[in-house]
Amino acid sequence: MDGEKDKQFDLRPARVNAAEQADRFGSIKRVDTVDDNHDYEDDHFQDQDINLSEGHIRDLPGESINDFSGPKNEEMSRDQVDFIYSPGEPIEDTVPQDPDLKLVENLMETDIKFVGRIFSVELDKVLLSDGRHSRREIVRHPGGACVVAMDSNQYIYMVRQYRLAFNRITLELPAGKLDTCEDPLSCAKRELFEETGIVAADWRELVTVMPSPGYTDELISIYLAEDLTRGEKNSDDGEFVSLVKLPLHEAMKMVLDGNIMDAKTCIGILLAARLT
Amino acid sequence: MDGEKDKQFDLRPARVNAAEQADRFGSIKRVDTVDDNHDYEDDHFQDQDINLSEGHIRDLPGESINDFSGPKNEEMSRDQVDFIYSPGEPIEDTVPQDPDLKLVENLMETDIKFVGRIFSVELDKVLLSDGRHSRREIVRHPGGACVVAMDSNQYIYMVRQYRLAFNRITLELPAGKLDTCEDPLSCAKRELFEETGIVAADWRELVTVMPSPGYTDELISIYLAEDLTRGEKNSDDGEFVSLVKLPLHEAMKMVLDGNIMDAKTCIGILLAARLT
Repeated sequence: MDGEKDKQFDLRPARVNAAEQADRFGSIKRVDTVDDNHDYEDDHFQDQDINLSEGHIRDLPGESINDFSGPKNEEMSRDQVDFIYSPGEPIEDTVPQDPDLKLVENLMETDIKFVGRIFSVELDKVLLSDGRHSRREIVRHPGGACVVAMDSNQYIYMVRQYRLAFNRITLELPAGKLDTCEDPLSCAKRELFEETGIVAADWRELVTVMPSPGYTDELISIYLAEDLTRGEKNSDDGEFVSLVKLPLHEAMKMVLDGNIMDAKTCIGILLAARLT
Repeated sequence: MDGEKDKQFDLRPARVNAAEQADRFGSIKRVDTVDDNHDYEDDHFQDQDINLSEGHIRDLPGESINDFSGPKNEEMSRDQVDFIYSPGEPIEDTVPQDPDLKLVENLMETDIKFVGRIFSVELDKVLLSDGRHSRREIVRHPGGACVVAMDSNQYIYMVRQYRLAFNRITLELPAGKLDTCEDPLSCAKRELFEETGIVAADWRELVTVMPSPGYTDELISIYLAEDLTRGEKNSDDGEFVSLVKLPLHEAMKMVLDGNIMDAKTCIGILLAARLT
């Protein structure tokens, strides 16, 4: 438990790459206080519930924007913010840790609500720093990888695919979810080949992102793949994706115009465009 | 049903903003073939199941990257891709729709597996274009909004908050989930004020993104907010978030270094940086 705590308070930013990901997150994802036999009643925490909405940390029911009467056009000063990073200061050295202590929640109990093939769902009970309890709904997902495959003419390869969640076809970078025990780079190589028939000799991790940290532990590693070699598209198995070739700058326009909406795809394209 | 089909095949890209979002997605999110009484057995689709992993459309179990033997350093040609967009061509005019027909899935049945306060979970049965059935696990989420609040010195305001999914404190843009019947811009204004005490006079939508379209219908609208007015931070209710002020270019560095990992935050910062 002390080991968990140490990790929990190691808040200074550090480069996270695919290789470190398992250590950084794999080992701290689950806290071992799961009580599978606990029977949650619907209103178990009702009196104490606060702070349930994702990213909606402060709940000010009596206050509205119309009540606001602060001075106009003044910047937030040092006594009004918890941290100020100034230009040129190394960020690592300017992050005090004490103001964060109030943020931390301690997991009390976990109730598994759904186990699927893609994800599972937990309802967790947490202890807040003020002594109150709350509940958190968490989607546990294995994570995935995503690829900007760019040829020497700065064309990239994307897929059009049907997304049931939106009843709509989207334009996305080749991507997929990690197989059991698969590292993100292997996943990226496999998914690129399966979806496009492309093999790349030059791989570079751009970033690893949390698509929606308010309720899911999914992590997606995004790669730039260059020095491409093409394969024949397998027409039988390729029935469920359309392969699209387009210039990176056209994809960039589609992000800015709102025509590409998949978050990992937006990030991959925006970052690749910075490098070219 | 014909109306649904028409929408489903309207695949040409179009600008999606917050105001249009409800029309574009709200009306087509749900298909009315829900059968609440249907009892899914665990192995109901086992023989026919394919294509279940997110973004992992082609499943080629017998094929590996080592089997690949295509010619080296050749670009994908027109007969190997379904769509090619060339520089200068307006993308809307170069999108044939026929190759997409094979992608579309028809929802047969929906089974609600979990109903929470933040999201609910469905297990859907779909009919694929080749006549086979498959299952999809979908998280239904109300969506949210997120704000890059930037002052006249190009400092932005962010929040450090605890994320149970990762047992970790993250640095994110102010954001939150839509209240019932709330539009994304109202949500953005409310969340910015609640989390930071800031009110902004100048609002511009940057993009609306799908954080993880493979399994959730969540949409997040990202705004740039300028001409800021500050309020006093409410210390009681602010216990669960630390407010951070930092130059936009420092935040940009943290995205590139992997120290900011929240996807909506990465996109907001990358887009705001393009505008400055």
